[in-house]
Amino acid sequence: MQTIEQTAEMRAWSEQARAAGQRIGFVPTMGYLHEGHISLVREARRRTDRCVVSIFVNPLQFGANEDLSRYPRDLDRDRTMLEEVGADTLYLPSASAMYPAGFQTQVEVTDVTTGLCGRSRPTHFRGVTTVLAKLFNTLRPHATFFGEKDFQQLVTVRRMVKDLDFDIDVVGMPIVREDDGVAMSSRNKYLSSEERTAARCLSRSLAAAKEAVAGGERDGRRVQGLVEGIIRKQPLAEIDYVELVDVESLRVVTRIEQPALLALAARFGATRLIDNAVLEPAGGCDVPKHAA
Amino acid sequence: MQTIEQTAEMRAWSEQARAAGQRIGFVPTMGYLHEGHISLVREARRRTDRCVVSIFVNPLQFGANEDLSRYPRDLDRDRTMLEEVGADTLYLPSASAMYPAGFQTQVEVTDVTTGLCGRSRPTHFRGVTTVLAKLFNTLRPHATFFGEKDFQQLVTVRRMVKDLDFDIDVVGMPIVREDDGVAMSSRNKYLSSEERTAARCLSRSLAAAKEAVAGGERDGRRVQGLVEGIIRKQPLAEIDYVELVDVESLRVVTRIEQPALLALAARFGATRLIDNAVLEPAGGCDVPKHAA
Repeated sequence: MQTIEQTAEMRAWSEQARAAGQRIGFVPTMGYLHEGHISLVREARRRTDRCVVSIFVNPLQFGANEDLSRYPRDLDRDRTMLEEVGADTLYLPSASAMYPAGFQTQVEVTDVTTGLCGRSRPTHFRGVTTVLAKLFNTLRPHATFFGEKDFQQLVTVRRMVKDLDFDIDVVGMPIVREDDGVAMSSRNKYLSSEERTAARCLSRSLAAAKEAVAGGERDGRRVQGLVEGIIRKQPLAEIDYVELVDVESLRVVTRIEQPALLALAARFGATRLIDNAVLEPAGGCDVPKHAA
Repeated sequence: MQTIEQTAEMRAWSEQARAAGQRIGFVPTMGYLHEGHISLVREARRRTDRCVVSIFVNPLQFGANEDLSRYPRDLDRDRTMLEEVGADTLYLPSASAMYPAGFQTQVEVTDVTTGLCGRSRPTHFRGVTTVLAKLFNTLRPHATFFGEKDFQQLVTVRRMVKDLDFDIDVVGMPIVREDDGVAMSSRNKYLSSEERTAARCLSRSLAAAKEAVAGGERDGRRVQGLVEGIIRKQPLAEIDYVELVDVESLRVVTRIEQPALLALAARFGATRLIDNAVLEPAGGCDVPKHAA
């Protein structure tokens, strides 16, 4: 696996691949990889000819009181995992090259970033879309791959790509979970043993919501109440939000008539975890299809 | 000259040109072309293999009380002028295709857009950079051409291209003036005959500033006062701003030790005109070169 650190070299790599008629798949990450990231690389390999993975802990997407300085890093382990799964190229830009003195441009998606995580992390998504615009312009991928765990991020990136006419296929991939149901996240490392056990309540609450909807429940507030009730029983968990929203606009929905996203964030000590599930009413819609 | 209206067709045109190893030159305009625009097309033809001119009166860059609805249009005349100068392709996207329902992404350059025109047109440059990001992604030009009359726009575009890693050469071209010194502008059409004559005071004031600096004047405030004095003698002119700034950061400078931009805006009736000149101290610097 090749490692590239310079923008100009990355750009040349991309031009060469394109000139050779190869499709480029791009998996942007902040490193400290887990099976969720690896599933993205696998899909990129399946769908494209050359797979680039970037590792860049992007300062722009961390708030002032967030965990930028202590964000977990283990480049040797990341490299081994990427070699095993068959990534072609690892891109490691430096923060000083990405944001030199005088840098002052922002890419911002407005509506879909205001709720959910955007409420407690008001500059986060602007940091994500700004760095992605830069990476997209340098790597010029044909397809890019994101996990559905960061569902709001996926919706935001889709929106940016569409709005700014990037010619890139944005592929979302299912959440990968540990055996006990906890969604994989680089931040799970922060959890104490007790917090790690307590964190199971999140996926358990989502499973209960799915079951309720499968059983015919369509009232959004009752489903939300059910989820909150399960998390509140866990004394180590502190809810940031539990919300039911449209899967595309991320606007709040009160009835589950079409697939709706139940998204949540909760703190376990100093660690904030997110999780979500798409709730699909049986048949996709209360109105029978032949009547529509 | 070929005319393209659809994004997908424009994108295919660009891909084809690039695959053929041709360099693409791009001149974005709002139409109602004049010799200033034509000078950009000429330079694009000189420097690149294929020249695309876009005409799009971009609603995003007009404020609520500005002249979007009455902005002058004459597509037949524009087309004739572009054919005469030898543009290859005219791109005419529609507002509904550029900004469909749900559009919500903004590209914003912060520091350099706050002063000068940004003060009285707070959302203008965000509209410019957003539409350019879209056009750059669709056309993928190797070089793009802007007039120095909109000097702040040129600086802003350079900044966006650099910050977001667009692989595009941004070329600035000198202001083209009418015989009496008035800078060419599509908005000159709005002027009454008296206002048009009065508008000469702008270029006259800039010429006086240049002469003062050539004569050794280095005090920014005195140069500014000189310019304001000349414009104020003209009763039909109402100053919006007269400012002396650094040519790159656009921060106010008080001493003319290096090339500095004297930029101004003034209203003649309902019409707002802009003009500028780069003031260069003899030798480029007060400190002799061998002493630096």
